Amino acid sequence: MSEEIVVIPGDGIGQEVVPAAVEVLEAVGDFDFVEADAGDHVKAETGEALPDETYELVADADATLFGAAGETAADVILPLRTAVDSFVNVRPAKAYPGVDALRPETDLVFLRENTEGVYAGHEDRLSDDLSTLTRVVTTSASERLAEFACDYVGGEGGHFQVAHKANVMRETDGRFLDAVVETAEKNGVETDAVLMDAFATHVCLDPTQFDTVVCPNLAGDVLSDLAAGLVGGLGLLPSANIGPDNALFEPVHGTAPDIAGEGIANPAATILSAAMLLDHLGYDEEAERVNSAVEAVLADGPRTPDLGGDASTEDVTAAVLEHL
Amino acid sequence: MSEEIVVIPGDGIGQEVVPAAVEVLEAVGDFDFVEADAGDHVKAETGEALPDETYELVADADATLFGAAGETAADVILPLRTAVDSFVNVRPAKAYPGVDALRPETDLVFLRENTEGVYAGHEDRLSDDLSTLTRVVTTSASERLAEFACDYVGGEGGHFQVAHKANVMRETDGRFLDAVVETAEKNGVETDAVLMDAFATHVCLDPTQFDTVVCPNLAGDVLSDLAAGLVGGLGLLPSANIGPDNALFEPVHGTAPDIAGEGIANPAATILSAAMLLDHLGYDEEAERVNSAVEAVLADGPRTPDLGGDASTEDVTAAVLEHL
Ligand SMILES: CC(C)[C@H](C(=O)O)[C@@H](O)C(=O)O
Ligand SMILES: CC(C)[C@H](C(=O)O)[C@@H](O)C(=O)O
Repeated sequence: MSEEIVVIPGDGIGQEVVPAAVEVLEAVGDFDFVEADAGDHVKAETGEALPDETYELVADADATLFGAAGETAADVILPLRTAVDSFVNVRPAKAYPGVDALRPETDLVFLRENTEGVYAGHEDRLSDDLSTLTRVVTTSASERLAEFACDYVGGEGGHFQVAHKANVMRETDGRFLDAVVETAEKNGVETDAVLMDAFATHVCLDPTQFDTVVCPNLAGDVLSDLAAGLVGGLGLLPSANIGPDNALFEPVHGTAPDIAGEGIANPAATILSAAMLLDHLGYDEEAERVNSAVEAVLADGPRTPDLGGDASTEDVTAAVLEHL
Repeated sequence: MSEEIVVIPGDGIGQEVVPAAVEVLEAVGDFDFVEADAGDHVKAETGEALPDETYELVADADATLFGAAGETAADVILPLRTAVDSFVNVRPAKAYPGVDALRPETDLVFLRENTEGVYAGHEDRLSDDLSTLTRVVTTSASERLAEFACDYVGGEGGHFQVAHKANVMRETDGRFLDAVVETAEKNGVETDAVLMDAFATHVCLDPTQFDTVVCPNLAGDVLSDLAAGLVGGLGLLPSANIGPDNALFEPVHGTAPDIAGEGIANPAATILSAAMLLDHLGYDEEAERVNSAVEAVLADGPRTPDLGGDASTEDVTAAVLEHL
């Protein structure tokens, strides 16, 4: 039986890069694609950026490939992460040969807690002057993330880094740090704890000090975007929101309104997200083929304008398909 | 009458770089120095990292020059910021000619909110599994910061950037962003709002897009450390914690335990912090002389090992004194 993959192009260049990635998926597997809608254009029509129907489809699918949403990004992506009960956001940030990067030696993966921290969303307006937000950290979510991290680095004998701010957020990040470190110890995995501010300095000075970085939610958001800056921008970064039963994959970039509709968007990040999807569904070999094809094209294939070329989305997609 | 300056060397290289900066202050002005103690070594002796006496001295002084504290950094520096009621942490991050930098064109100043956000410190252990932290944002603190920022950029006609995460922390960072932007508008100052994650990417790609960056507390902590990575590390960065009546100045670097006691610590960041102190007390011309002397020494004077030389703290200090 073929897996059901929900496809949500969303807004802007999402409409161009998601179909490109679907072509690549079709070339390597036999999937049952179901198209769904979300984003600014849906809000403009219906008043709601994320239709219930889309939420339900994502919750029930084997996997989802999402493009991008504009102004409504938070209204779309945060509930969709919940729809798949995603407890970890996997964000590789890797420089590619042939692509300009501030630190070409960068090869990092961020494992970002995806359910709590400041994203848990309890905010209150207590007076005309004062608002509060309740940052939430549980041992259970931290352990679940750490178990995933242990598997991710190959179990016993592996190692990862933990970014945190437990010197200030002693109770909450302290709980996070303790739970992650203890879980790693139980699994025979070594950890290095690093303050998130120190990480920001040191990853610029020498990114090779780090490899797999486990982070609370907001730290993962900011530090992975920082790493994107070191590898040349958000344009090439894929990501995976993993849940216990299903998952949602999305490029880290946005809707790129300045070039939307011109057919020149770089489909690489979305195709790399599709490779993460393949890997997640157990098609490791197919995932590997797609990754290699994208790398080959980035190294010396046709390039879209963001990488200094004048190829179209279609040209790049065709080149990737050829390399498969 | 000469101003009273409290001097707290603290731990590690603080013991070496603070006396160097005091020599420079003595060379350009007539101050009444009062030495006070804090840090790991005080905790080891007395059980408390920050003696009440030190707190009181700092609260009553015209200004304080602080070196660094080790493990107890948060126990020392956070209360000391409160002692001067510091509502803004001023953090210049500028690359110097002659010093290796990942982005030599970087010339930024972060104006970090210094009293609230997650630093307000209300944490609770609600169960064996769950802890919370109450993030606090007030309009009044945000406006106070924004008024300072408006002055800092020269008032009417000036401009600055505001980093925030109001797409997720809608109520708290929304309040921060609104208060800052409205205050700027009243003062005829233009603002550009930028998501803190997007800032992390874009400052790597092109730091010249930004100049003065107003931030909530934790955002300012992380983003200024990121900028430190772009200019070659924390080693050269000064900072000022400004309050309504007095202020505390400190290098951004820590105690550097690996080289402490060897007399080879780079005193530049602390001397630059002393220049910020001079400026704050109204000695603009003296501040300028100190800044120029440090720049001249960084460009072609003796260098400590962190900058690839083999000069001592004393050699560098002597060279700065000569250039005054
Ligand atoms: C759109 C926004 C809510 C989102 C986040 O903060 O998680 C984005 O920045 C990301 O990292 O995917
Ligand atoms: C030591 C720590 C509490 C402090 C902070 O987070 O403010 C430090 O990182 C800084 O930025 O001065």
